[in-house]
Amino acid sequence: MSYIYKRKAQYHETDQMAVIHHSNYFRWLEEARVEFLKDLGTPYKEFEAKGIISPIVDVSAKYIKPITFEDTAYIYMDITKYNGVKLSIEYHITNQNDELCVVATTTSCFVKDNQVCSLKRVEKEFDEKFRKYIENEQGNSFKK
Amino acid sequence: MSYIYKRKAQYHETDQMAVIHHSNYFRWLEEARVEFLKDLGTPYKEFEAKGIISPIVDVSAKYIKPITFEDTAYIYMDITKYNGVKLSIEYHITNQNDELCVVATTTSCFVKDNQVCSLKRVEKEFDEKFRKYIENEQGNSFKK
Amino acid sequence: MSYIYKRKAQYHETDQMAVIHHSNYFRWLEEARVEFLKDLGTPYKEFEAKGIISPIVDVSAKYIKPITFEDTAYIYMDITKYNGVKLSIEYHITNQNDELCVVATTTSCFVKDNQVCSLKRVEKEFDEKFRKYIENEQGNSFKK
Amino acid sequence: MSYIYKRKAQYHETDQMAVIHHSNYFRWLEEARVEFLKDLGTPYKEFEAKGIISPIVDVSAKYIKPITFEDTAYIYMDITKYNGVKLSIEYHITNQNDELCVVATTTSCFVKDNQVCSLKRVEKEFDEKFRKYIENEQGNSFKK
Repeated sequence: MSYIYKRKAQYHETDQMAVIHHSNYFRWLEEARVEFLKDLGTPYKEFEAKGIISPIVDVSAKYIKPITFEDTAYIYMDITKYNGVKLSIEYHITNQNDELCVVATTTSCFVKDNQVCSLKRVEKEFDEKFRKYIENEQGNSFKK
Repeated sequence: MSYIYKRKAQYHETDQMAVIHHSNYFRWLEEARVEFLKDLGTPYKEFEAKGIISPIVDVSAKYIKPITFEDTAYIYMDITKYNGVKLSIEYHITNQNDELCVVATTTSCFVKDNQVCSLKRVEKEFDEKFRKYIENEQGNSFKK
Repeated sequence: MSYIYKRKAQYHETDQMAVIHHSNYFRWLEEARVEFLKDLGTPYKEFEAKGIISPIVDVSAKYIKPITFEDTAYIYMDITKYNGVKLSIEYHITNQNDELCVVATTTSCFVKDNQVCSLKRVEKEFDEKFRKYIENEQGNSFKK
Repeated sequence: MSYIYKRKAQYHETDQMAVIHHSNYFRWLEEARVEFLKDLGTPYKEFEAKGIISPIVDVSAKYIKPITFEDTAYIYMDITKYNGVKLSIEYHITNQNDELCVVATTTSCFVKDNQVCSLKRVEKEFDEKFRKYIENEQGNSFKK
């Protein structure tokens, strides 16, 4: 069962096409990810407190329908891959009319002391939380 | 022969990891694309003046090396696909030390009167410029 | 009694000083203003629907205490001046510990058919709502 | 004689009013300031290398004429106050037709070891450069 983040589309995020500028969705995904990680029991702030940062290594997005000022976006997230070293999340963004607007993916890694590392080694507790989440999701197809 | 856009990395584009925030690269790509289109003889401003907008339909990026405040980025661009309806561009971003930092792609379409359209039909002159560019590039592998 | 807008400080809004970049507060103020106007019965979207835009003519901000990632900001707003032609709002931003972080003002005007205009003339109903709000506030000192 | 920073107005900086969003000017001012400080022999990067950051403590802006996509902005800067503890800069932004678009001010302070400090004490060499600049400007009225 996927996690959902709700987000109002803001005026300052529009461009002169009168739609949300495509770059802004990656900011929304980040906001959604922050809440998702909190919900998983692995808050990003605690990563940083432990000296671990989690930079994005790749992203993709497919823009299906524009989102406009004052629309409400619903961002559905699911982990599609986790191996200790990389975490891949898939996002489906719908609007308030339940129309699919954006499909996106992000992959992040984990870095400690300037080196890419495995969470399994540097932060076992968080590693287990990711594994447990995936196990529980097993068999649950993505709902949106 | 690819087109190159030079861009200084700005302080306001950094985040608390002290690197350029990953979402900002899509803004740089847009800036680069605007100059590239001008160079091709098909300026974006003229598209809009003719009632044609060119929304992004998909993007992807692979982040290889972070770019930091005051770095100078070089964005190499080439058209990888053009069929009148969609335009795909590939970007290679290097820093001032000629290190590859980001590889990205964008695909945009053309919209007139709220309908996706073929440039070949609605703006023959621009269509021919894209086709001519690709023809000339034929056989030239991407230089960077 | 002032209107309050609650806002989470986002990672993508930080800079390499590890605080919210000062330019972003003006985006927060805009978000707050949009909700405030809705609450007043004069939603910005309806302004635009009536062909009226409301550009900012001046702003100021005093930054007292930095806001950091995951802080919760509370933006208290009050109308400090309204004469039909210009609307001035004052903002006090506090964090979750009730510490004052930013004090700011914005003044916007009203534009129809590319001309600055008086709301009293072009949109009497909205004009009255602003006047009524101010009248009700009379004697209420700013609470924060 | 004031320092001038040239800046192209970008598509991603517009909003649905089809003008540069007012918050973005503070980013332009920062870019301009970075170049100005470099020109003065006190580059911001060296401040940070010496453990000094220079947060903004207050700003103001008056928006006179909108700037639109593809306009070229010229940002004229001058130091209006410097006392070792605070640095105030005034900015006049014109477009390619030499029309005045924005007048703004920023004041920044200097922070070392989490404490506001006087440059005179913590970085005498930079302090002297600011004082020398002001002395040379004495009697030169702002040119734009």
